[in-house]
Amino acid sequence: MILALAGGVGGAKLAFGLTKALSPEDLIIAVNTGDDFDHLGLRICPDIDTVLYTLGKMANTETGWGQANETWNFMEALKAIGGETWFQLGDRDLATHVERTRRLQAGELLSVITADFADRFGINHPIVPATDEPMPTIVNTPDGDLSFQDYFVRLQCAPTVTGFEFGGAAAAKPSSAISKAFESGQIEAVVICPSNPYVSIAPILAVPAISDFIYNSGTPVIVVSPIVGGQAIKGPAAKMMKELGALPSALSIAHHYQDIANTVVIDTTDSDFTAPIQELGLEVLVTNTIMNTAEEKTRLADDILTFARHRSRMVKLQHKTQ
Amino acid sequence: MILALAGGVGGAKLAFGLTKALSPEDLIIAVNTGDDFDHLGLRICPDIDTVLYTLGKMANTETGWGQANETWNFMEALKAIGGETWFQLGDRDLATHVERTRRLQAGELLSVITADFADRFGINHPIVPATDEPMPTIVNTPDGDLSFQDYFVRLQCAPTVTGFEFGGAAAAKPSSAISKAFESGQIEAVVICPSNPYVSIAPILAVPAISDFIYNSGTPVIVVSPIVGGQAIKGPAAKMMKELGALPSALSIAHHYQDIANTVVIDTTDSDFTAPIQELGLEVLVTNTIMNTAEEKTRLADDILTFARHRSRMVKLQHKTQ
Repeated sequence: MILALAGGVGGAKLAFGLTKALSPEDLIIAVNTGDDFDHLGLRICPDIDTVLYTLGKMANTETGWGQANETWNFMEALKAIGGETWFQLGDRDLATHVERTRRLQAGELLSVITADFADRFGINHPIVPATDEPMPTIVNTPDGDLSFQDYFVRLQCAPTVTGFEFGGAAAAKPSSAISKAFESGQIEAVVICPSNPYVSIAPILAVPAISDFIYNSGTPVIVVSPIVGGQAIKGPAAKMMKELGALPSALSIAHHYQDIANTVVIDTTDSDFTAPIQELGLEVLVTNTIMNTAEEKTRLADDILTFARHRSRMVKLQHKTQ
Repeated sequence: MILALAGGVGGAKLAFGLTKALSPEDLIIAVNTGDDFDHLGLRICPDIDTVLYTLGKMANTETGWGQANETWNFMEALKAIGGETWFQLGDRDLATHVERTRRLQAGELLSVITADFADRFGINHPIVPATDEPMPTIVNTPDGDLSFQDYFVRLQCAPTVTGFEFGGAAAAKPSSAISKAFESGQIEAVVICPSNPYVSIAPILAVPAISDFIYNSGTPVIVVSPIVGGQAIKGPAAKMMKELGALPSALSIAHHYQDIANTVVIDTTDSDFTAPIQELGLEVLVTNTIMNTAEEKTRLADDILTFARHRSRMVKLQHKTQ
């Protein structure tokens, strides 16, 4: 079984590829919930929805969020009555938020609701929130703390970041499908998808039982670099790296994850970093990591899984905690 | 000043006419809140919205509820994820419910929110909920009690009604604009719009201070019959009358209101009821009460106001409580 850690767009793309390469019993996709927030009285879970919509083949590939064939009459009408319009909600997308909020308020777990939605979207592989408890990401800036969506959407990532906090993380428990996978002893590798290391992956790793597993179980950890040619494919990862004092590069990603990773997957563009990353004691897989088509997603997943199978024995021997 | 009591479609039509005939200072439209309910976590106020949309010239005249040029992608997506779809919510209409719910949850009064929405829709005349407190209509049936929207929408008015209750009515206070109008001594007539007497007007009259004013102030009360030619123009009023043992007719409407009305406005179709209604001690205005066009709405309002002005002195002398 593979445990994939995923944020939004990049994570969803590789998760899609992994579903093509693995049976539903052999994959569990743990999704970041640090971006989740309450807006207009609705509970909005951007990364879960991006993964749901991507795997359900209904994602809006133009925007990178929301549903395809979307309409915006709700937003237009909301503007007309003076409502807040800085966070765009499509008419179809809204159904997800309204129904999820209703079910959460009725006492259902986010993981149960997410599993039901996945089932409705024809998705067979388990998509699970990292945790069922709210764990909002806080963005530290020189001018004070910001809630994640204030930073990310309202302020368009303009403020300089100095750090991040994950409120409630210390007490958070993994959602039950993740705990069961840990207990099963069946997880053969952890794949960290090409998502933002600070605001997509770090919140997942901030759940104590998840980082305990990753640090202490000896399971190989394969990180796919979200930085290609010094740029983030999407989102503020490169900008954040600079602001935190690192040169945006696949090598910096390797440095960031060197305490937990066994393997770093980098794009062919970045093949010059192979030796420097190996010098950190990490395996390197060089391949095409850009995933524009379904075929590219599946091929990257296949490459990663093939590499993981071939190297698993050696990787285990090299694991940091052994 | 005229106080108009209004439910949904019929009430909204005459209210529209009254806004053409009266300045904003000379009219207050008190709207039924008994239909209001919580659905999908949203507070929905069907009659307030019908009045808002009608006066804002954005009502869906085909359905009789919701907004014109509406789309239904939210409902389609909600169905896809297993949400409840028995109550139709258009994409534009949804903005009203989401924003109202958000503001109510933030502690704002329904009357304040309604006034803001009216202002946004370019409506200058005051539209006020009868009361700011929830006062849900309960429909009694031989098989037990039903919430109003269960009866009205989910069960399509199929159950036989045996009576109605207005939960919380005994403690309900009129919203402040109505109380102020009462205190001002400026109300010259009450116009009961052609709305369902049992589930649109009775809930308004169930607010103690409103019925106190109507019974005890001596202000003339003019009732516009919602029954024309033995039929309700829209809705279950005629069916309810039969089930409660009355022949559906303008005469039965006169009987229903005889303790509070001074004048009954009936359609020319029903002119044969003039003498029988007069025998109840009520004035009768016979005119065309069907309001399909803006002109017909305005003309009916003009007819009523002209009649009220000419007869006001006599009407006051005849008032039941004098």
